[in-house]
Amino acid sequence: MRQVYVAGAAMTRFAKQPERSTKDLVREAVGGALADAGCAAADVQACHFGNAVSASITGQEMLLGQFALRPLGLGEIAVFNVENACASASTALHLAWQAVAAGVYDVVLAVGAEKMTHDDKARSFAAIGGSVDVDDVPADLPADRSFLMDLYAQASLRYMAESGATREDLARVVVKNQRHGMLNPASQYGAEISVEDVLSAREIVWPFTLPMCSPISDGAAAVVLVGPDRRVRSRAVPVLASVVRTAPVDGHERVTALAGAAAYDMAGLGPEDLDCLEVHDAAASAELLIYEQLGLAKQGDGPALIRDGTTCLGGRVPVNTGGGLLARGHPIGATGLGQVVEAVMQLRGTAGRRQVPAPRVALTHNAGGWHGEDNVVSAVHLFGRP
Amino acid sequence: MRQVYVAGAAMTRFAKQPERSTKDLVREAVGGALADAGCAAADVQACHFGNAVSASITGQEMLLGQFALRPLGLGEIAVFNVENACASASTALHLAWQAVAAGVYDVVLAVGAEKMTHDDKARSFAAIGGSVDVDDVPADLPADRSFLMDLYAQASLRYMAESGATREDLARVVVKNQRHGMLNPASQYGAEISVEDVLSAREIVWPFTLPMCSPISDGAAAVVLVGPDRRVRSRAVPVLASVVRTAPVDGHERVTALAGAAAYDMAGLGPEDLDCLEVHDAAASAELLIYEQLGLAKQGDGPALIRDGTTCLGGRVPVNTGGGLLARGHPIGATGLGQVVEAVMQLRGTAGRRQVPAPRVALTHNAGGWHGEDNVVSAVHLFGRP
Repeated sequence: MRQVYVAGAAMTRFAKQPERSTKDLVREAVGGALADAGCAAADVQACHFGNAVSASITGQEMLLGQFALRPLGLGEIAVFNVENACASASTALHLAWQAVAAGVYDVVLAVGAEKMTHDDKARSFAAIGGSVDVDDVPADLPADRSFLMDLYAQASLRYMAESGATREDLARVVVKNQRHGMLNPASQYGAEISVEDVLSAREIVWPFTLPMCSPISDGAAAVVLVGPDRRVRSRAVPVLASVVRTAPVDGHERVTALAGAAAYDMAGLGPEDLDCLEVHDAAASAELLIYEQLGLAKQGDGPALIRDGTTCLGGRVPVNTGGGLLARGHPIGATGLGQVVEAVMQLRGTAGRRQVPAPRVALTHNAGGWHGEDNVVSAVHLFGRP
Repeated sequence: MRQVYVAGAAMTRFAKQPERSTKDLVREAVGGALADAGCAAADVQACHFGNAVSASITGQEMLLGQFALRPLGLGEIAVFNVENACASASTALHLAWQAVAAGVYDVVLAVGAEKMTHDDKARSFAAIGGSVDVDDVPADLPADRSFLMDLYAQASLRYMAESGATREDLARVVVKNQRHGMLNPASQYGAEISVEDVLSAREIVWPFTLPMCSPISDGAAAVVLVGPDRRVRSRAVPVLASVVRTAPVDGHERVTALAGAAAYDMAGLGPEDLDCLEVHDAAASAELLIYEQLGLAKQGDGPALIRDGTTCLGGRVPVNTGGGLLARGHPIGATGLGQVVEAVMQLRGTAGRRQVPAPRVALTHNAGGWHGEDNVVSAVHLFGRP
């Protein structure tokens, strides 16, 4: 496999943007990524396009990628519409990486785009419900929240019992990510709030209050991947590993632990080599679990990392410097590439007030769907310094 | 790129099967393909899963592949849910081929599955409408037919004016494909009918009567692709070319002509080398247009091939020996792989009463969506004798 580089990366702001169309969001993200890479539309040889709920929200099934790319002058090439729930964008990235790594193409675009806002909020929540096996969904879905949040809540209670994590620990994750989001102009939210603020907010489903749950968001993100021959710019960020995994049938191992181990193996690195991470904090508790599954902490030791500030900006290994899903927002089919945009900025040293000092290795972790007691899909990417 | 082989191929019957779940259809097709290839589930290293309208019909968004494969013991591996409207299954095949050809994997599964039947037929038609840019769809979609059929009808009228094709010629395509379908146990329909029967049937949208339009269908199809090292069986069918293309932005060239030319180029073959074809006859007129776009006939000469029997079983280059979309059925996300199952049977010499004498090269053509005056996507594959 050849070395692959992120030559360009860009995203829209993630936010509730009911007035903007998917095409408009894609135009901004793809235009930005091409400009960043110094590429013209004509240089692009293929595109993998991630989206999750367009059919449910806008009625656009099947060919969103082609219809959104056509106004940008992107025709003729192969366009692949890819879905893997909340891991759709990183799945698009993985397939684009695979095509360049294997020498099939030299310049491939990966895009993630999502409009989740709908006049009828229940429709947004119902759409997210499609990331669960429909045979397992209760007949009367909650209309005031995503059913997925109920599953995250159950997992959180199990985890709290096992690890001794408290609701204060969950709130600490929110405090950290909101503080980070405040430093990111592309972030949906961001605020200086306290643990008490988080705990006294409206309860969504026990043990979660509103700020412990990732929001409904609209947005798009895109990257241009190139092979070694096209690495024309000094700012190109090498992809050190790209892994997508499905949960094992027997449920014995966690899918993120599997994906993380495979990514470390591919790059010849370990968790001790990481300088910053963007992880899938769809709910506050998930971030603590992911610390453990990715080997940042031993089993049950996740809460220590948020208590002692290890994962805050300024700590040893900052996590979700862009605000995470909780603050940056979670337009589900775009999230995975939004994480990559943050990783690329950190590695290039262009993250401004949220810059981690001279990072050498960044990890992104994007998960999707729910089955049994685990996510269905997990995607882990490792990136290096330009 | 390495040589890739179809080691196993299988499909369910295509038909209205409201009592069967998608999982049940997938179990039959995947089980059949693995058995045909002599593979265990544990041999499969990745899966590309094509589907188009599941979100609209069953509410299962995003992760259909994982949920359908899990009961078959397929976990841990990467599963990619792929959508390209009516070309979803052949897009899955293309990506699976690419991964094996590039040496990323040695055994990859490509699956196409679709349930289109719904108690409310208007919902089935509306779902298909998602394969058009939703910004271009009229506010009041026809409830008694697919809006796509209106677009095929407009294209048909243009083609008839240019080529001199008559409604009798369209009917002749139906007569041929229904006759072929009668010889295929996996076909939804099949009958000995006359041109007069076709013309006197209920009009759907001028110039089409009901039998000139592909039906609503449920079904699944699957293939196991292997690299050169895994070619353990003498019945493995080589993939000679695999191409997916999007329509050019300026609409100057037809996407199927582009995809066909690229496939011939990849294989070092031309239309004169073809012994049989499965093409995307979503409407009867489309088959005549495709003859011309794939180079079987010069522009305007498509009708001659159906009038003189060239493309009938027994003719020089039989087209849609499996019945085509018109007779075999058109479960849209499965169709492209249903075509491949027929091509594989013909090349192996196992097509029974519809066997073409000793074919050396077979072509499959699968198109999807509509924009302007053309399909959005076209996928062309070429296969050789085992």
